[in-house]
Amino acid sequence: MIDGELMTQLLAFRKERDWEQFHTPKNLSAALCVEAAELLEQFRWAKDTELMELVEREREAIEHEVADIAIFLSYFCHDLEMSLSDVVRRRLELNRAKYPVEKARGTATKYDRFE
Amino acid sequence: MIDGELMTQLLAFRKERDWEQFHTPKNLSAALCVEAAELLEQFRWAKDTELMELVEREREAIEHEVADIAIFLSYFCHDLEMSLSDVVRRRLELNRAKYPVEKARGTATKYDRFE
Amino acid sequence: MIDGELMTQLLAFRKERDWEQFHTPKNLSAALCVEAAELLEQFRWAKDTELMELVEREREAIEHEVADIAIFLSYFCHDLEMSLSDVVRRRLELNRAKYPVEKARGTATKYDRFE
Amino acid sequence: MIDGELMTQLLAFRKERDWEQFHTPKNLSAALCVEAAELLEQFRWAKDTELMELVEREREAIEHEVADIAIFLSYFCHDLEMSLSDVVRRRLELNRAKYPVEKARGTATKYDRFE
Repeated sequence: MIDGELMTQLLAFRKERDWEQFHTPKNLSAALCVEAAELLEQFRWAKDTELMELVEREREAIEHEVADIAIFLSYFCHDLEMSLSDVVRRRLELNRAKYPVEKARGTATKYDRFE
Repeated sequence: MIDGELMTQLLAFRKERDWEQFHTPKNLSAALCVEAAELLEQFRWAKDTELMELVEREREAIEHEVADIAIFLSYFCHDLEMSLSDVVRRRLELNRAKYPVEKARGTATKYDRFE
Repeated sequence: MIDGELMTQLLAFRKERDWEQFHTPKNLSAALCVEAAELLEQFRWAKDTELMELVEREREAIEHEVADIAIFLSYFCHDLEMSLSDVVRRRLELNRAKYPVEKARGTATKYDRFE
Repeated sequence: MIDGELMTQLLAFRKERDWEQFHTPKNLSAALCVEAAELLEQFRWAKDTELMELVEREREAIEHEVADIAIFLSYFCHDLEMSLSDVVRRRLELNRAKYPVEKARGTATKYDRFE
């Protein structure tokens, strides 16, 4: 998603403003909640049939919220020395085990409710 | 963050389980809120001085939540045909204009409160 | 919602466990986010047509999340010496002005988008 | 928190605007997330030592967010025929069992981690 050169720019942006002091893991988690909720705000009253029209009408605002989530997530991973692709890879491996195709196909049931 | 090959795996994982039907932009936004809140849950009662110890103790659980956020964000961008690096690049450009260094340095004040 | 006698019990519960130290306004806000997201988690993948059946099936879990939100909101108001009915009354007055019936009827448009 | 007369006003406000159609349990849960996150937004970058000053400076904005949470929670309970004081009472009973004083005193450890 975000390559090394863009990450370097994000870190420079933060450093120039002396904002590392605000970016504790707790505060970045709170910021992720705030930004995810701002994205959800776009959709909260929408009916399922209206979603695509809404996406086109509000595409720019939606992109801003998506970017904010990605930016805070990138800072979080950088600061905690996590490789996002590594954690996703491991998570996917785990999800394959928790949600075998034959049990999970076509259902949103959580794995701890499988019979 | 997530390269083409890993994205291909994420999409295959979803398709095999016939889960695209659940992944409307509204539902994915809701899922992003839920996962961001699960990350925040790790830190909600922690004092600022305890954060680093907490991160080490709960690193695996934290990585799982981070991965979940990244995965849902990746599906969201894929489905809406957004390039995450493009939207981040544009957002960063905008933030540079909204938060000039001389006004933003060392303060968490929002841009619409600058004097 | 929560009368004086129940509030007294909630405060005693907290005091006996020496938990006031964790209940800063920031942490209580974070807790409200976490609990609201746990409520949303019940519904995140559900289609509009499935909601009522889901509510009946998960009524107990839903009640627990609702209670958690109410409890943290009560502590927050208590600690900041806010009367919940007063703030709701004032908010309702404000919303009446922001959303006049003739403009707001049948639409989820936000007031700052009214023509 | 919210007495019968104020609830009647809230329901009339909603009915006059024909907004019941937007208030599915799913959408109200999403709205609760959005409002809780707006409350958290006030505090997300604040250090523990700054919280009380921040509360005084932003008291009006904080009250608005608190009111929004209470209003959506009230609609949710009304629509699902839940008595908020009953669910809180039952939850408190449960919490007393899950968090016995001798184990829970002075610690934010979750009950499933007690030794």
